[in-house]
Amino acid sequence: MKYPKLPSRQENFSEWYNQVVLRAELADYAPVRGCMVVRPYGWALWENIQKALDQRFKATGHQNAAFPLLIPMSFFEREKEHVEGFAPELAVVTHGGGKKLEEPLAVRPTSETIIGYMWSKWIRSYRDLPVLLNQWGNVVRWELRTKLFLRTLEFYWQEGHTAHATREEAEEETLRMLRVYEDFAVNEAAIPVIPGQKSESEKFAGAVHTYTIEAMMGDTKALQAGTSHFLGQNFAKAFDIQFLDADNQMKYVWTTSWGLSTRFIGAIIMVHGDDQGLVLPPRLAPIQVVIVPIWRSDEQQAQVLEVAQRLQAQLAERFRVHLDDRDHVTPGFKFNDWELRGVPVRLEIGPRDVANQVAVLARRDMPGKEGRRVVPWDGLDDAVADLLDEIHANLLRRATEFREARIFRPETYEELGQVVQKGWALAGWCGRAECEARIKEDFKATNRCLPFEEHRPAEAPERCIVCGEPAKHWAFFAKAY
Amino acid sequence: MKYPKLPSRQENFSEWYNQVVLRAELADYAPVRGCMVVRPYGWALWENIQKALDQRFKATGHQNAAFPLLIPMSFFEREKEHVEGFAPELAVVTHGGGKKLEEPLAVRPTSETIIGYMWSKWIRSYRDLPVLLNQWGNVVRWELRTKLFLRTLEFYWQEGHTAHATREEAEEETLRMLRVYEDFAVNEAAIPVIPGQKSESEKFAGAVHTYTIEAMMGDTKALQAGTSHFLGQNFAKAFDIQFLDADNQMKYVWTTSWGLSTRFIGAIIMVHGDDQGLVLPPRLAPIQVVIVPIWRSDEQQAQVLEVAQRLQAQLAERFRVHLDDRDHVTPGFKFNDWELRGVPVRLEIGPRDVANQVAVLARRDMPGKEGRRVVPWDGLDDAVADLLDEIHANLLRRATEFREARIFRPETYEELGQVVQKGWALAGWCGRAECEARIKEDFKATNRCLPFEEHRPAEAPERCIVCGEPAKHWAFFAKAY
Repeated sequence: MKYPKLPSRQENFSEWYNQVVLRAELADYAPVRGCMVVRPYGWALWENIQKALDQRFKATGHQNAAFPLLIPMSFFEREKEHVEGFAPELAVVTHGGGKKLEEPLAVRPTSETIIGYMWSKWIRSYRDLPVLLNQWGNVVRWELRTKLFLRTLEFYWQEGHTAHATREEAEEETLRMLRVYEDFAVNEAAIPVIPGQKSESEKFAGAVHTYTIEAMMGDTKALQAGTSHFLGQNFAKAFDIQFLDADNQMKYVWTTSWGLSTRFIGAIIMVHGDDQGLVLPPRLAPIQVVIVPIWRSDEQQAQVLEVAQRLQAQLAERFRVHLDDRDHVTPGFKFNDWELRGVPVRLEIGPRDVANQVAVLARRDMPGKEGRRVVPWDGLDDAVADLLDEIHANLLRRATEFREARIFRPETYEELGQVVQKGWALAGWCGRAECEARIKEDFKATNRCLPFEEHRPAEAPERCIVCGEPAKHWAFFAKAY
Repeated sequence: MKYPKLPSRQENFSEWYNQVVLRAELADYAPVRGCMVVRPYGWALWENIQKALDQRFKATGHQNAAFPLLIPMSFFEREKEHVEGFAPELAVVTHGGGKKLEEPLAVRPTSETIIGYMWSKWIRSYRDLPVLLNQWGNVVRWELRTKLFLRTLEFYWQEGHTAHATREEAEEETLRMLRVYEDFAVNEAAIPVIPGQKSESEKFAGAVHTYTIEAMMGDTKALQAGTSHFLGQNFAKAFDIQFLDADNQMKYVWTTSWGLSTRFIGAIIMVHGDDQGLVLPPRLAPIQVVIVPIWRSDEQQAQVLEVAQRLQAQLAERFRVHLDDRDHVTPGFKFNDWELRGVPVRLEIGPRDVANQVAVLARRDMPGKEGRRVVPWDGLDDAVADLLDEIHANLLRRATEFREARIFRPETYEELGQVVQKGWALAGWCGRAECEARIKEDFKATNRCLPFEEHRPAEAPERCIVCGEPAKHWAFFAKAY
């Protein structure tokens, strides 16, 4: 496929994003409006995200299971806020096997209801608790405005669902999993995030509290990159999930849910990408090292390829390596191609390198001379391992500096209006929905979160930035995806 | 939960199966008719199946991707046989976001159509071929008679889809993947299978040829455990998937598809299970070794548990190990519980074993004294590894002997009718659908496959067992799931 030049991020961030997704072959548009096809390169990235998260879920005692895609419509009615939030977004199956169904079925938009229903059958005694489940799957929400990965009718995610004997345990779990997401974002994706609590108007439909990790994209917009909900006893009561406690009393369980989706791929693209295309964080990149052999004559080709294959086999023991041995495109074409696809390290090897028993390692995150180093074959593995760690650290540092330079502390409402055009505003807020709504109307910025201690000033906030009444919280306001 | 006694397989195989699935907590019935919930123990088994297959797919050059769940209804119309086969089974989404859709959408029953549509956009040149894809996901088929794992409205599977420049390559791929399934069945699940070709009336809707691996269950019924389809140019023409070949001609691609589903879990249960419950093949078992500590006094408990934890940590480096340290149930209860759940090896450790620095290993596949051995702690890992291999070999041998003893070579049509009550019939067949249909009507047995060379007699078949005309094929006839 021939494409026109990639627009720069400065020029048109949104179009840059769409083009990068399509050209790097992460995803494509499906024939049904708002649906996407995740292509092999995009899916390999998602598989690495899955592995990194799944390990963490299992290490914290969770087990995977699979609940049905199709949920009776009546289930949604049982939790008042939940149905208000999700009913308008449902895709509905009305016919099956050529017949009209007696009760229409929703394609799941999330699984609290069906899991609640099953738990009411399974949970009997305090000995059955806690129940710590996770599900990897697809869900459908009928969104109006869509964008590849960021908002699609069908998307892929994991949804954790847990049930506990006490409120305290459930609250602990909610925060534990938020911290798991934070750890994943920082240590796997090199994305710095701000954990915090959602305000009442921004919380999950049916939750008592919602916690979030918020990340700043390359255009300074915020993206909710993962959420964890304390559901209290809302679903326990709606689905009658009771257990006999050690004290011989019947009690309702306390539940939580938490999710992270293919949306996160959008965050990776928008946090690290540059005007050449993707820049993938090394620990999640489908290809960590691409080997580009360089030759002029047939004789050189044979000689260089033989070494390239040897180095590939050697590196493949520790890294995800691809040898680009295509002979109908030039090395220059390959360099651009793999830059677009964001491979962290390019290993170049030509006849002179073969003679000197060295190879050139070039960093995707640092184009030009300073990103290149000549490395002897001997010790190449360790050099690559160190380089991947360096790249991870550099990406994280860069994204953190970018964000810190774009977090503002406006003094006035007008100033808030200005700073959300170029970053995030951290300001006092009275806690009232009207003040949030006014910011949204005036400046298209929303309340992203009430940050945890480590991300807010030591002093208490004084006045609400909107109404001037005494402030209850520090809050981040920003435009968001 | 209290259950009545598990029925024996002899007594009521079908009820034995249902009870084992429910009691071992592999799966449960969902609130929607014919749908199932796969519980953590069942899903862990499926994850091990996925790993074993995915490795093989990647080793043969395939990449995973994800195509949408929702497919425009009109796509099915494009391939005549495909629509005839699948239209009656579709679940149809008619409403989304509170509105009636202009075109109803099918919940995918299989993805040839949507993948064909995307390929027509992606494939341009012979350099783009072959395309070797696989997808792990869920599909929905509106089945009338359902049974957990064996036939459910929604099921989980992988569907491979490949496109090739030539007929030969596509046919090779079709057989290669059938052999991958065979290798998986035999070497991971310890299930002997008979690979062969499906007759015209039994093939996949839209295929030119369908190949299958057929396994014999514990009640002697056959189960199609995996299929691989050579689709010719049927879908290429329906979706206009053309490429410019090296000879500068526009040509249609040749495609294949192949799938294996959660049905395979049903096969594992029905091939290996016994009257005590599940018997899981060691290479796929979610728990390979369960440690049951035995104590009488509190002092013993502390001492035994300390050793049990040490052994658990040691074994966990190489095996999937669970320590059952529950203190509100007896060791006898635990023995039964883990037998029901089919864990291949039970490690018992009591005060006397601690004193002697030994442990008892008990085999699930060989109850009673002959299945028990006392093993010193030193060298325990290797003893367990050997034992798991022995169990695998024993399960495979046992299932093969069971099958071989129940394959009959009837001489007459009447005899065929008798033998399919207690096994499979291998007989000559003229190749005509009428003769297959007559067997089905008279004896409820179907044509399972035309076996490959290694599973048929050296001599050519003489006469069709039904009509007496000259036979074209050897064929297996059996009752089937």
